[in-house]
Amino acid sequence: MARPTPLSGFPEWLPDGRIVEQHVLDVLRRTFELHGFAGIETRAVEPLEQLLRKGETSKEVYVLRRLHDEPAGADEPADRQGQLGLHFDLTVPFARYVLENAGRLAFPFRRYQIQKVWRGERPQDGRFREFVQADIDVVGAGALPYHYEVELPLVMADALGALRDLGVPPVRILVNNRKVAEGFYRGLGLEDVEAVLRGIDKLDKVGPEAVADLLVAEAGATPEQAAACLELAAVHGGDASVVDRVRELAERHGASTELLEEGLRELGALVTAAAERAPGVLVADLKIARGLDYYTGSVYETVLVGHEDLGSICSGGRYDTLASDGTTTYPGVGLSIGVSRLVSRLLSAGLVRATRSVPTAVLVAVTSEERRTASDAVAAALRARGIPTEVAPSAAKFGKQIKHADRRGIPFVWFVGDADEDGAPAQDEVKDIRSGEQTPVDAATWTPPAEDLLPRVVAAG
Amino acid sequence: MARPTPLSGFPEWLPDGRIVEQHVLDVLRRTFELHGFAGIETRAVEPLEQLLRKGETSKEVYVLRRLHDEPAGADEPADRQGQLGLHFDLTVPFARYVLENAGRLAFPFRRYQIQKVWRGERPQDGRFREFVQADIDVVGAGALPYHYEVELPLVMADALGALRDLGVPPVRILVNNRKVAEGFYRGLGLEDVEAVLRGIDKLDKVGPEAVADLLVAEAGATPEQAAACLELAAVHGGDASVVDRVRELAERHGASTELLEEGLRELGALVTAAAERAPGVLVADLKIARGLDYYTGSVYETVLVGHEDLGSICSGGRYDTLASDGTTTYPGVGLSIGVSRLVSRLLSAGLVRATRSVPTAVLVAVTSEERRTASDAVAAALRARGIPTEVAPSAAKFGKQIKHADRRGIPFVWFVGDADEDGAPAQDEVKDIRSGEQTPVDAATWTPPAEDLLPRVVAAG
Repeated sequence: MARPTPLSGFPEWLPDGRIVEQHVLDVLRRTFELHGFAGIETRAVEPLEQLLRKGETSKEVYVLRRLHDEPAGADEPADRQGQLGLHFDLTVPFARYVLENAGRLAFPFRRYQIQKVWRGERPQDGRFREFVQADIDVVGAGALPYHYEVELPLVMADALGALRDLGVPPVRILVNNRKVAEGFYRGLGLEDVEAVLRGIDKLDKVGPEAVADLLVAEAGATPEQAAACLELAAVHGGDASVVDRVRELAERHGASTELLEEGLRELGALVTAAAERAPGVLVADLKIARGLDYYTGSVYETVLVGHEDLGSICSGGRYDTLASDGTTTYPGVGLSIGVSRLVSRLLSAGLVRATRSVPTAVLVAVTSEERRTASDAVAAALRARGIPTEVAPSAAKFGKQIKHADRRGIPFVWFVGDADEDGAPAQDEVKDIRSGEQTPVDAATWTPPAEDLLPRVVAAG
Repeated sequence: MARPTPLSGFPEWLPDGRIVEQHVLDVLRRTFELHGFAGIETRAVEPLEQLLRKGETSKEVYVLRRLHDEPAGADEPADRQGQLGLHFDLTVPFARYVLENAGRLAFPFRRYQIQKVWRGERPQDGRFREFVQADIDVVGAGALPYHYEVELPLVMADALGALRDLGVPPVRILVNNRKVAEGFYRGLGLEDVEAVLRGIDKLDKVGPEAVADLLVAEAGATPEQAAACLELAAVHGGDASVVDRVRELAERHGASTELLEEGLRELGALVTAAAERAPGVLVADLKIARGLDYYTGSVYETVLVGHEDLGSICSGGRYDTLASDGTTTYPGVGLSIGVSRLVSRLLSAGLVRATRSVPTAVLVAVTSEERRTASDAVAAALRARGIPTEVAPSAAKFGKQIKHADRRGIPFVWFVGDADEDGAPAQDEVKDIRSGEQTPVDAATWTPPAEDLLPRVVAAG
């Protein structure tokens, strides 16, 4: 077998990169649990017809077949009925899980879910075919109060803030409210709200002039209406004054509506609460449109400060119908962190690093193969006290064993005391191979410095 | 959307089941790291031609295609070249990972890997189409000393032993050595070793008489040779006396060979070390054959005591060629825990349970929506001290808020003190809703009893 090469779009990390990813995942999980979110996992596959309910995403789905199935076999027919595809996000499976288990869940149901998803898109920097998402959602049965639209981005602010201890740059969470946009557009007299949102969504890519042309050509806007939409999109700020600015703008353009007013009350409440609970993290940004997604209230995007080119690393919003079984409708609000996108940038830009690539703190040297069991016993004693330990692969010269530890990044090498002539054990010794310092120790009591016990993730350079 | 039904073979757990699974995974990971194994993850897909190298498994593979690809499009042609399939184990991807990254890994390389795998098999009790495996392997470059064949099952004994704290039943690890079997068969004059192994592998299913017939019919054995093979397969025991019994048997049948003797030395060393380091867990069992797998030395299977019908929950062995790039061969030894198989039995047989289905220890009640921020502040203070906390969904009557906590299994409800007429804050109080006891508390200092802080996993009943 020749040396294989990586598959584009399917990232894998070396062990030290995986330590970074695992630390990120641990911090996220810990934060979500502190906020009372229960962890669930769903299967990787969903019926194809479920995955294709949102027509937009059909291009991206990976369809499965069993290798030896006949294309039109009885078990898995060739038409879509019964076919399975890999999930492309964690929202569609979560909606299905909620419906399937509604009778056994307590609502509002708070869940986090950290899993891989797959999209058959063309890979780019930060855009993969297989990647890890970390989602939180709250879903209600029949109704869901607005205050969850304030709470959920603040949970993410807490989670992403906790990552700063690992050396991750700060984030800025950009929020908008669909009701504000829709209320304003309708107040202006624009009825094709989707077309306007589609145009505004391109602002960062093509610039305001091209968007104005688009709004005229595709959303039926006059140049004046287009200009007003662009004025709205330009509003942003970290305090409640944005609400006043939008209100002033709407009055000036005669675009005030009840829907706009409702959206502004919500947006104002969110910005005010955020300014208090996560100062400087959350910013109202009226150009955030979230494309054609099914959001109906707050929408969120998140940039890594200094890495805005990466695009959003945490997005979501409020949807009035996550799922419905005909009797009950389940509204929800949620956000999803693109963990692979974030971690790939952390690694490729050298922003953070693991202090070593193995969990091992101590390598117990082996004096001779006959005495390996003495080294095994020391290792067991250290592990019993929570110290990650391995035993040297061979009874090579000590210099070679130290080199093995060095190559693996293990900070300490333990030498088991030889029984002396009288049969009394000589003292064990441990060497810090970074300083070269070697000291007499006892496996029942010695502990490495706290910072050496486990690999840590720290800001690089 | 009608209420969806589960997909056979794709298990999912409710939140309390997921807590059990997550605890199991945490204990495994923790133990593997204590033993110096580095965690890696590989992508879920491999080139189909890689997955089909072992012909036996070709039936089980799920093949991927992108929904809108033409069957013979330029991007992913219809022939196997370039096609991707989901991995059916973690060994094939690990072998590829080792080859791909050999220059950046230190050997012997110790890794653990906990991921889902997929097999298009017919689902049965404990046999799924999607399931989680937890693997450990040590792989050497060019050579790998025998002592790793002793170490790895003992790491698994440690990991599975650590699960006993959660209420998981004890396990028995059954070991054999291919060299013993092959040496014995060849000593008897049987050359088609694979055919003999294939027959012996059916012993538990069809019984000794049918196996004897098989050995005669398919392995070219005389009835006497078949009887000798069955005598060997009947040998088992937890100490080095098994070695003597096999040696005696071989002498009686004139079947002693150098290969047999080498295998017996290895098996004896393993059983002796295990009797000391994990007494009662590891048993030599000469009928363990591991089908047609590519093992060349020790082989391992593991049963959950009292649940032998479940089949092996942890299997593996020594393979002389995990991978090869033409220049270097990478021998290895590893075991794989069938986590989904284990967890599904723990849950379905009611062996263990989570003490609650949510991480939340405290629900902070809300007096009125205007005072929700006061409840948010208490929640933040508790979380800052590591206490999982959520805030009530609405300012309903306290009785209803307590009921919400009860339904979710949250043990404590916190009442924020109302400001009294003088503006001085009244005391906060917390109610243990199980005992009904309500006591004055301070969010800066109160801590729940340790056993209530997080959901625990305990033996049921």
